Amino acid sequence: MLLLVWTLLNAVSGLKADDGGMVEELVTEKEAEESHRQDSVNLLTFISLLTLTILTIWLFKHRRVRFLHETGLAMIYGLLVGVILRYGIPATSYHNKTPPSCSLKEGPSSTLLLNVSGKFFEYTLKGEINFREIHNVEQNDMLRKVTFDPEVFFNILLPPIIFHAGYSLKKRHFFRNLGSIITYAFLGTAISCFVIGNLMYGVVKLMRAVGQLTEKFYYTDCLFFGAIISATDPVTMLAIFNELHADGDLYALLFGESVMNDAVAIVLSSSIVAYQPAGANTHMFDASAFFKSVGIFLGIFSGSFVMGAATGVVTALISCSFTKLHCFPLLETALFFLMSWSTFLLAEACGFTGVVAVLFCGITQAHYTCNNLSEESTKRTKQLFEVLHFLAENFIFSYMGLALFTFQKHIFSPIFIIGAFIAIFIGRALNIYPLSFLLNLGRRDKIRGNFQHMMMFAGLRGAMAFALAIRDTATSARQMMFTTTLLIVFFTVWVFGGGTTPMLSWLHISKTQQESAWLFRLWYTFDHNYLKPILTHSGPPLTSTLPSYCGPLASCLTSPRAYENHEQLRDPDTDLIHNDSDLTFTFGDTAITANGASASRADAAGGLGWSTNGKRSGSTSEEALERELDSREQELLSRGTRLVFPMEDHI
Amino acid sequence: MLLLVWTLLNAVSGLKADDGGMVEELVTEKEAEESHRQDSVNLLTFISLLTLTILTIWLFKHRRVRFLHETGLAMIYGLLVGVILRYGIPATSYHNKTPPSCSLKEGPSSTLLLNVSGKFFEYTLKGEINFREIHNVEQNDMLRKVTFDPEVFFNILLPPIIFHAGYSLKKRHFFRNLGSIITYAFLGTAISCFVIGNLMYGVVKLMRAVGQLTEKFYYTDCLFFGAIISATDPVTMLAIFNELHADGDLYALLFGESVMNDAVAIVLSSSIVAYQPAGANTHMFDASAFFKSVGIFLGIFSGSFVMGAATGVVTALISCSFTKLHCFPLLETALFFLMSWSTFLLAEACGFTGVVAVLFCGITQAHYTCNNLSEESTKRTKQLFEVLHFLAENFIFSYMGLALFTFQKHIFSPIFIIGAFIAIFIGRALNIYPLSFLLNLGRRDKIRGNFQHMMMFAGLRGAMAFALAIRDTATSARQMMFTTTLLIVFFTVWVFGGGTTPMLSWLHISKTQQESAWLFRLWYTFDHNYLKPILTHSGPPLTSTLPSYCGPLASCLTSPRAYENHEQLRDPDTDLIHNDSDLTFTFGDTAITANGASASRADAAGGLGWSTNGKRSGSTSEEALERELDSREQELLSRGTRLVFPMEDHI
Repeated sequence: MLLLVWTLLNAVSGLKADDGGMVEELVTEKEAEESHRQDSVNLLTFISLLTLTILTIWLFKHRRVRFLHETGLAMIYGLLVGVILRYGIPATSYHNKTPPSCSLKEGPSSTLLLNVSGKFFEYTLKGEINFREIHNVEQNDMLRKVTFDPEVFFNILLPPIIFHAGYSLKKRHFFRNLGSIITYAFLGTAISCFVIGNLMYGVVKLMRAVGQLTEKFYYTDCLFFGAIISATDPVTMLAIFNELHADGDLYALLFGESVMNDAVAIVLSSSIVAYQPAGANTHMFDASAFFKSVGIFLGIFSGSFVMGAATGVVTALISCSFTKLHCFPLLETALFFLMSWSTFLLAEACGFTGVVAVLFCGITQAHYTCNNLSEESTKRTKQLFEVLHFLAENFIFSYMGLALFTFQKHIFSPIFIIGAFIAIFIGRALNIYPLSFLLNLGRRDKIRGNFQHMMMFAGLRGAMAFALAIRDTATSARQMMFTTTLLIVFFTVWVFGGGTTPMLSWLHISKTQQESAWLFRLWYTFDHNYLKPILTHSGPPLTSTLPSYCGPLASCLTSPRAYENHEQLRDPDTDLIHNDSDLTFTFGDTAITANGASASRADAAGGLGWSTNGKRSGSTSEEALERELDSREQELLSRGTRLVFPMEDHI
Repeated sequence: MLLLVWTLLNAVSGLKADDGGMVEELVTEKEAEESHRQDSVNLLTFISLLTLTILTIWLFKHRRVRFLHETGLAMIYGLLVGVILRYGIPATSYHNKTPPSCSLKEGPSSTLLLNVSGKFFEYTLKGEINFREIHNVEQNDMLRKVTFDPEVFFNILLPPIIFHAGYSLKKRHFFRNLGSIITYAFLGTAISCFVIGNLMYGVVKLMRAVGQLTEKFYYTDCLFFGAIISATDPVTMLAIFNELHADGDLYALLFGESVMNDAVAIVLSSSIVAYQPAGANTHMFDASAFFKSVGIFLGIFSGSFVMGAATGVVTALISCSFTKLHCFPLLETALFFLMSWSTFLLAEACGFTGVVAVLFCGITQAHYTCNNLSEESTKRTKQLFEVLHFLAENFIFSYMGLALFTFQKHIFSPIFIIGAFIAIFIGRALNIYPLSFLLNLGRRDKIRGNFQHMMMFAGLRGAMAFALAIRDTATSARQMMFTTTLLIVFFTVWVFGGGTTPMLSWLHISKTQQESAWLFRLWYTFDHNYLKPILTHSGPPLTSTLPSYCGPLASCLTSPRAYENHEQLRDPDTDLIHNDSDLTFTFGDTAITANGASASRADAAGGLGWSTNGKRSGSTSEEALERELDSREQELLSRGTRLVFPMEDHI
């Protein structure tokens, strides 16, 4: 009671005792509040766009509309909102004054102090600004506000998209066509980049001759454009492939190529930026600088690859040793998510490319870690990344639509745009046809003409090209590239994306052929005999695959559960490897019709439960490997593949 | 072929043609890269912390350690890393110079232009800086770097936590104790805020008398401290409750109170900040300013409530009308996620409190929307928010641990800290015991003494108190509050959180009693007769509950599926309401032992499938409502409750 009285007394005295001491209010407090509110409105705009897109997708799915993919739809909605923001809202904002400026003799530093009558304020550098834009700084506030920091795309939106792509790569057909995919991704992207870059340099010279270009546009800029526009997008095309149950090998070639060439393009573009010849006479050919760039490319790529694969392996080892983690799916999923994200950050912190590391982390995790996760966790993890991927992707495509009207530094140059369209066509052709010809020399089952045409047609440009283009829009050359990239993305997604279904039927693509795949066989042996036993519980015990003198090491590395599996379960994996520890067979030319595959796919995709077809015991080695591949396919289809939706057939 | 030649020619000429034109390199480019790398390292630190926490939690779960909760663990790891960052790394960074400064006569504006020999650079305001700190600006770079923008907590980390809490509130016991919960949340928080504020004002006066305080510390500051420290945290305590299957009513009271009082505390603190008496003689009692503050409180709270509930209802309507959405769980989950986020943004954009809106959105969605979602989607959505909640919560608690050593403006004042500990104890006591006494006058089944002691004991402070305290650390008063809040969080989470299990057994808490719950019955009738039929497919058709003259409107609002359900399924919901459209009965004093409930809980939590026990048809109305509540409980337990982990009993 005494306390209560004291409290009340304090209350009364408190309210009367204090006098004086105005709280100093900054003008900026109101501004910060207004800016926060504005940020909320902007994000809300995007979220409403996404909501609208989702509802319309549902309508499309329901009505079985296939001519427009969800990403194309997201772009259209983005465009509409962009038009409204640009023309519907008066350009003047609440601020109509030029911000105060001050002069310094030293160069700009990241932090600046401002002294206002004895009080100090801290400012951080936002970037250089064009003299003619100074008066626009505050005026077009609304449009400036919907512009995100480009690094958002690289650090937040791209990683889940790329990770999900890598995670979905665990496919029978992917490993079969590994050699071809790598060839297309590395050699093909290099060819495409080089061809487009050179053609564009011709276009730039033409523009200069005609008098359309007065600003600087270097040869390295052209090559940079070649690199960013060579990144093809897997999304649209493959969603349709998936729905139509089109050919598995073609799917693997296209998907593999587009995923891997994103990685190549991103590293390639940063190597081109790093190309800086010594001396005053820059942008000339300089052998040392050239080799330095090549070195940077190889260093960054292999570094990112190793880092991604290493984190994947670490996750596998953790989930392998912490076996009781099974009982806590939430912990497992969270761990999985954190490890994937830390791959990205680790790579960025080391100066490698996070996105590339995340891709290889996804591939490794799909291959090893998934075997250690409980069924529940695998499903959860897959669903988590599916949602993140779906949201991020549609967000980027909405933003692209919006950017066409709200981005403030567009430079529409008709000659450059037409030139670019021609160049990407030629670049794609010189990538696909010659490489297919060369690959066919070595392949037992050839990449047929209609496959080549389809691959030519499927060169859509999407999120990666956009993200690379928007990353740097400081010079007029880069602004011109950005505008052109945007238009190319629109055109390819709408026209080629919409034309996929007719194109597939026109090219009569429905059957699949087997490849000899020596690279795959080599990898398969190593993987199943040594890596799987160490990283998962599923392979054979190392003691049976390693030479006898490695006995102690082998028994130390093999988990007790591997023996159990080996003795008791005798699942197809164990069976298979038991029979084929020397793996000397080759593949026959047996053809599997797409119908068989599509039936099982529809089954799995319809969510009717997890397929257990793979649980048969084998007799001959060829049959066994064939079955193992089949069960992998099944597993994949039920675990990680279904790119976008279940089949409509089940509605 | 011609093209190829042209391309090659271009390549050669391109490499030789350009001369001159050095790419201007800014010093800042290197700095930006360095800063990006630093950001990656910092995030990586946190993610490694989280990973470590998860692995240790697993160990704890496995060994059945209960004295330390995961959040307490996260704080300890944070502390360790904080110590390393503070003392392990030399204080000097790569920059050892004072940043350049310039003078202006006008006040600071949000944007500043810097003119460096004709080039303009744009700077944005970061905040005011103390004169004595100027030399520290760049020096303690490492420590400054791990400091996040406080708005990150409010805009990114708190929403999923609060949403998940709201989403989990759909409990039989919660609705039964609605009246008591609201009393504790509103009246209790107000009492606590007022008592603590006044006691602390006494402490401040004492400090001034002793000479420990020279800076300004107003009465409103004390009240503000009272408001932020009144936000109790549900996390630690309730995870343990859940694991131990402690009493359901007590759980509902504690969980409901702590979730709702977060909302009250956040609005209360912003109303206190908004309290600004007119005239020069500020911080005196001013009736008009006081009523304005009360008005602001009511306005913001009811506005946020309406906005949250409205978005929840809109989601329900969308998922109700787009029934075929069922076939696309991904779309449903994405839609759900986006709608929840847009609630937050919408509220922020309108000047309300996003976190409060999200809370009520979660409650509404759990109540209505879930009935419309497919089983698959409900599970997915629940899991998505579970992961987000888990990560966000552990992140905040890790950060708290880190902040004790890395935050640069701590003011440790022993008198203030001791005073605060005593004040929160007294504040909690004057909240719980008198209110329980008053509530017991009206309740048929009293809140017993041991329940009151447990509620007194359970007043942990956590994420919300921290987030409110870190939001503004500009003045020394606020810095002192922040330091004290941090210490209170540490103490309560470790000591009270760790003492929950012994305390529960010491107070002999194991049984549950039923409440008469007139408020619940009133709500129940309205909800089941009017709201459920409109917003979900489950209630009776409106045509049977509305008066006959409303016929056309009713049939227009009722979905066809409701008739089907009504005619064919006759599930307990429909049955129940059919029999009890006037609902005149009261509850008996039937006691349900905690064992029965815990059995079903363990069942559901073990992931052994979805309970279908609720599908019996009723005879008397009391039995029916009782059963309906039971089936709700079941539904809840399998859908949205399991706060942290499945039971250990199933390992």
